[in-house]
Amino acid sequence: MSAPILAVIGGGQLARMMQEEASALGIHLRTLVEASDGSAAQVTVDAPVGRATDADAVRALVAGARALTFEHEHQDSVLLSRLQAEGVRVRPAPEALELARDKLAMRRAVDAAGLPQPAWAEIAGDAQEMRAQVLAFAAAHGWPVVLKTPRGGYDGHGVLMLNSAADLDDGDASVWLKATADARAGRATIGTGGGGSLGGGAVTSLLVEEAIPFTRELAVLLARRPSGQIALWPVIESVQADGICVETVAPAPGLDAAAVQQAEHIGRTIAERADVTGVLAVELFAVEGSAATGLYVNELAMRPHNSGHWTQDGAVTSQFAQHLRAVLDLPLGATTPTAPATVMVNFLGGERQAPADALTRALALEPEARIHLYGKQWRPGRKLGHVSMTTTATDPEGIAAVRERLRAVVAMLRGEA
Amino acid sequence: MSAPILAVIGGGQLARMMQEEASALGIHLRTLVEASDGSAAQVTVDAPVGRATDADAVRALVAGARALTFEHEHQDSVLLSRLQAEGVRVRPAPEALELARDKLAMRRAVDAAGLPQPAWAEIAGDAQEMRAQVLAFAAAHGWPVVLKTPRGGYDGHGVLMLNSAADLDDGDASVWLKATADARAGRATIGTGGGGSLGGGAVTSLLVEEAIPFTRELAVLLARRPSGQIALWPVIESVQADGICVETVAPAPGLDAAAVQQAEHIGRTIAERADVTGVLAVELFAVEGSAATGLYVNELAMRPHNSGHWTQDGAVTSQFAQHLRAVLDLPLGATTPTAPATVMVNFLGGERQAPADALTRALALEPEARIHLYGKQWRPGRKLGHVSMTTTATDPEGIAAVRERLRAVVAMLRGEA
Repeated sequence: MSAPILAVIGGGQLARMMQEEASALGIHLRTLVEASDGSAAQVTVDAPVGRATDADAVRALVAGARALTFEHEHQDSVLLSRLQAEGVRVRPAPEALELARDKLAMRRAVDAAGLPQPAWAEIAGDAQEMRAQVLAFAAAHGWPVVLKTPRGGYDGHGVLMLNSAADLDDGDASVWLKATADARAGRATIGTGGGGSLGGGAVTSLLVEEAIPFTRELAVLLARRPSGQIALWPVIESVQADGICVETVAPAPGLDAAAVQQAEHIGRTIAERADVTGVLAVELFAVEGSAATGLYVNELAMRPHNSGHWTQDGAVTSQFAQHLRAVLDLPLGATTPTAPATVMVNFLGGERQAPADALTRALALEPEARIHLYGKQWRPGRKLGHVSMTTTATDPEGIAAVRERLRAVVAMLRGEA
Repeated sequence: MSAPILAVIGGGQLARMMQEEASALGIHLRTLVEASDGSAAQVTVDAPVGRATDADAVRALVAGARALTFEHEHQDSVLLSRLQAEGVRVRPAPEALELARDKLAMRRAVDAAGLPQPAWAEIAGDAQEMRAQVLAFAAAHGWPVVLKTPRGGYDGHGVLMLNSAADLDDGDASVWLKATADARAGRATIGTGGGGSLGGGAVTSLLVEEAIPFTRELAVLLARRPSGQIALWPVIESVQADGICVETVAPAPGLDAAAVQQAEHIGRTIAERADVTGVLAVELFAVEGSAATGLYVNELAMRPHNSGHWTQDGAVTSQFAQHLRAVLDLPLGATTPTAPATVMVNFLGGERQAPADALTRALALEPEARIHLYGKQWRPGRKLGHVSMTTTATDPEGIAAVRERLRAVVAMLRGEA
């Protein structure tokens, strides 16, 4: 058996963790990386340096490869479509990837599929017109509302919560409106400072959404092969802070069976209608209370996702192995959990660089914890790794105790304990 | 945290699987490999090509590294001792490694520690003298006896079972006697054909051992840090064929508690007396019946070992991660099993090269199986990978059923089904 070559665009931690599984499966990854000393390049022998938008670099990448995949959605869709027309197996295909790349396209597709999501509207025009549209939307759906850039957002970038009309006239929001109007009018697109960034490319409209008063956030994670085979992992609970997934509990504790079924239905429906290949993560808002649990589609990702990191240590097949299998159209692995519950906590860079003995102290603190480091340079708030632990506890107190143990490990890694 | 550099000698599957764990722990492996396209080199960015006996190559390897370790015991002990004297952290140290490298040294050490092992004798002299010594040993301990070369053996090489005096005059045994006598007399050492090989270097004596009528083979696997911390995995059962470990069941089903305790005592004692660092595997013969279970030390390995491959999928910390932690003197991880039982079956090359769709068919057959491939070229009998599966079954029928499922996966990988 000679090793199949899989081309990957992106040199971050997701490509790095794909490589760990590629090694076990005897798959040759060829990864287009941003820098020769980055997270994935440190562990991938065949890692040419180049930009995802450089057609020559991408063409060289796919030469002899069985398929092309990505660790992030922010790809050059024109280039991908051209490659696909030339016979390259682009997985997920550019048409599917668009739903993860463009939130307006995603909102339209989720409506068309009849799946539940927050009320939303596209706003466009000059700054005054867009302002009026947001106010009209808020009048219909109530404050707060969420303003989003359709493209380029991740980890909370490209998302603004507006509590009132006053927030709309404030720093970031007004800068967004102006920049978007300028782009639409053919004037230069500009980036923004402050809490958000507008994302790349010609953002000529914005998205305004109802702010769902969720009780918690969930995610449904699955993989789908070109042949149609789908495998779903258990629905998980995700805890976000500042728009970044910081903790997950798998499976989502106490989630009612009807909600699990609906979450799975949402995942399957999006995967099948959009012909998704590879891993698909659908982030959901859950409103739980006296009535039936309400679920609302928040965001999509078409690649291994932070909400699935727990699968490395808590499922028979990890999301990284499954993504490789799915995009190469190999039979999918079992998604069975290996423990009653698995908790994952992200390790984000702290305010100061951690001391040299941080890893030693973290390992000593919790022999049961599985520590995953990304080989990335420290920067405050940057995702530098994650830790997870399986447990037989499924009650709130038991889960909370594991979470506290993992938070203590992360505090050690951050040099804060 | 900048990545600590760990120097490794050896480019096979054990180094490859160390690299998979090094990536997760943010450790930089620098691996001295035999060939630039070999098993470990395929997945290790920093993989200089060179021979383990080339002092310059090894010196370059350890420059800036925190420690030096190995994926096999057949090292140049003079070179290692020199490096150690110069301050290089050689782990395990050359004195410890000698016990895994030289079976005579091991037998002496096990006797000195008062641990149980087969009766044994060193035989040396001219061919006639050695023949007489074997016959005398057999007269005292009964046939069959086992003739071994002290060095260079692995996977059944360097081991001959002799059922009677006639076997001693047969092909391989007589060639061994002559070659050993020649080497002792200062005449050229020669290799042998047939079922065994004499191993490298100046083999000037042989080892004859009592053939224990074992009911099954076991292995105790542990890791030890320079600081003295030890962590043991559960004692496993190992099934051998032609001297190669082909299957393991963890933990060893139905092993009585006293035997478990004794196996752990044997492992700990060897590790502590020899000041072993890194992973230590002690292969044991078990004689179970009406009386108390008898255990006898068979062989040692000081590195991740085939009997510990199950830990990748069935324990909180795998032997590969633990070896890295141990030799870098990082706190050890938990060795707790993640399932009631884990079965591992080796994938050895079949008589013919497998067809291109062998992996696809194997993955399709058993979504629950974890397949590990080594990226090695096919050759009949060569270790090309292994597969494992966790199970809640601990009864003989349940374990046997899992073993059959894994054998079927391996048959697919071999292209025999």
